[in-house]
Amino acid sequence: MNSSPAYSNGYHPQQQQHGMRDKVRRGTRARSRELRESFSSGGNFGGLRVSEHDKQQQQQQQQGAPCTDFDMAYFHSYAHVGIHEEMIKDRVRTETYRTAIMQHQSSIAGKVVVDVGCGTGILSIFCAQAGAKRVYAVDASDIAVQANEVVKANNLSETIIVLHGRVEDVDIDEEVDVIISEWMGYMLLYESMLGSVITARDRWLKPGGLILPSSATLYMAPITHSDRYSESIDFWRNVYGIDMSAMLPLAKQCAFEEPCVETIVGENVLTWPHVVKQVDCHTITLHELESVTTNYKFKSMMRGLSLSPSPPSHICGCVSVQVYIFQFFGLIIVITTYF
Amino acid sequence: MNSSPAYSNGYHPQQQQHGMRDKVRRGTRARSRELRESFSSGGNFGGLRVSEHDKQQQQQQQQGAPCTDFDMAYFHSYAHVGIHEEMIKDRVRTETYRTAIMQHQSSIAGKVVVDVGCGTGILSIFCAQAGAKRVYAVDASDIAVQANEVVKANNLSETIIVLHGRVEDVDIDEEVDVIISEWMGYMLLYESMLGSVITARDRWLKPGGLILPSSATLYMAPITHSDRYSESIDFWRNVYGIDMSAMLPLAKQCAFEEPCVETIVGENVLTWPHVVKQVDCHTITLHELESVTTNYKFKSMMRGLSLSPSPPSHICGCVSVQVYIFQFFGLIIVITTYF
Repeated sequence: MNSSPAYSNGYHPQQQQHGMRDKVRRGTRARSRELRESFSSGGNFGGLRVSEHDKQQQQQQQQGAPCTDFDMAYFHSYAHVGIHEEMIKDRVRTETYRTAIMQHQSSIAGKVVVDVGCGTGILSIFCAQAGAKRVYAVDASDIAVQANEVVKANNLSETIIVLHGRVEDVDIDEEVDVIISEWMGYMLLYESMLGSVITARDRWLKPGGLILPSSATLYMAPITHSDRYSESIDFWRNVYGIDMSAMLPLAKQCAFEEPCVETIVGENVLTWPHVVKQVDCHTITLHELESVTTNYKFKSMMRGLSLSPSPPSHICGCVSVQVYIFQFFGLIIVITTYF
Repeated sequence: MNSSPAYSNGYHPQQQQHGMRDKVRRGTRARSRELRESFSSGGNFGGLRVSEHDKQQQQQQQQGAPCTDFDMAYFHSYAHVGIHEEMIKDRVRTETYRTAIMQHQSSIAGKVVVDVGCGTGILSIFCAQAGAKRVYAVDASDIAVQANEVVKANNLSETIIVLHGRVEDVDIDEEVDVIISEWMGYMLLYESMLGSVITARDRWLKPGGLILPSSATLYMAPITHSDRYSESIDFWRNVYGIDMSAMLPLAKQCAFEEPCVETIVGENVLTWPHVVKQVDCHTITLHELESVTTNYKFKSMMRGLSLSPSPPSHICGCVSVQVYIFQFFGLIIVITTYF
């Protein structure tokens, strides 16, 4: 899992080559054109307050590393309202943030907050409701334009300052007391957005300041999932009476080479989880995120075997190793975050 | 809806820029590399029988128009097993084809068949089961390699000849009696695969030969869908107690700018459907597919109004016109095919 967090992310166009029958989700083309133009003039946003963004765009000097095509496509993907609707409708996620903000109200009231990757601005508004003196809501995606409208419509323009740009590029002329961000992606680090939180921390956070969430842990454990295996793999053994077992190798390869997000029960988990990476948001560095490697050993409950492939593998590499040797369906990745 | 069916299709990379949280489906990278290499050496496959494909690739002469990047990404998307699993598991689709093949058994038994875009080869095998003398199973996607394995595993190599290439490029040295294809995409024509059926027809079909399906009709009608409207649009009026109505314009724009495949009931349909395009697979030409335009007039059951935007619009343009004027949720697109 390699990334240069300052100017890269988990977006890979090749992974976006969906079958034509997959549901298509895309951002607004007109906005995306503006986005491209803003990037092409200097390679970064310049980090302007939304209201100033358009007219002063040309005058900006480059600060952070230039945006890559990956960054542009990544930010573009977040300009679509659907992904924000989906995240906000995740009540566990959104209410956990709101609860955490209220639990830390004494550290937020009257203080300066930065919301890294603010999206529609909902976490910034929660912080304003908790009494923040000022909230800098930063997002490089064009959704920042909408966030600014939401802030205005809620008469919070005096408290919440929406900055349309990357944390590497925007200017905040004061130290901040609190950083809040919903940066966790697939396998915790997939989107590499943690790099933006680190950048914000190192640029603006006061010593002893609060970061929400403050830490995160990535676990993995092998699982079995006989229903899914049967649906996706064994399915090919008899297709309308035809033996399509010849499809099995490709079916296994496709099933195991990409992440799958679904609900399983405890009985599916075959071993105690292995800690792949512990993240302390106060101390982790960009350098630590460039490569995440783990040595692991699972004690199988199925056969009493010890599973420890060598050489040590990147976590992305483990899945296929597990699957082909032990016929597990795959690995479960568990993320815990601590507020 | 423009396309140059001989060497283009409905794939548009911009539409593939999904949020990072969307489930990723992709083909196998190794195969995709081979695919690119095969394209780069001459711009087409040369249309080889799978067993000969690798060793003779370099010796091929270009026949059809060169493949575009869109074509390559389109074919690549069909190299993933998941899309074939999804299509085959659509029992209405697959069993309708099998029933149609058996109903036309008298026209297939002892005859020569071409399966355009054979995928895993299931329709070719149905035709073999119906007694076809020979079936040419053609697919430009790397799934053709799997189809060939399935054919071999079912001892049908003498009957089914898998050709890995585009119908524009492959060689079939005899006239055929039957063309079968599952070419219908979103809004019937989205994938532009009908162009390949036309090409196959004009290259190889005997006069009076059978095409399955033989015709198709694209209808549209305005619908209302209050639940969906409420979930996607009204949702923003009160988000955890916050007025996010400022999101409404973008929410409407995003909801209406992309296709949505879901089940609705008859009560959702507001008018009698309008016939956008009738396709007779025996007579339609590539030229007819370059642009599909319709003049339409709906009689609203809601207000007794006649809706007829002018100037006449491409069907892709109707949705927003309808939506913004009449606050319908959108248009339903109905496709009927006749075997």
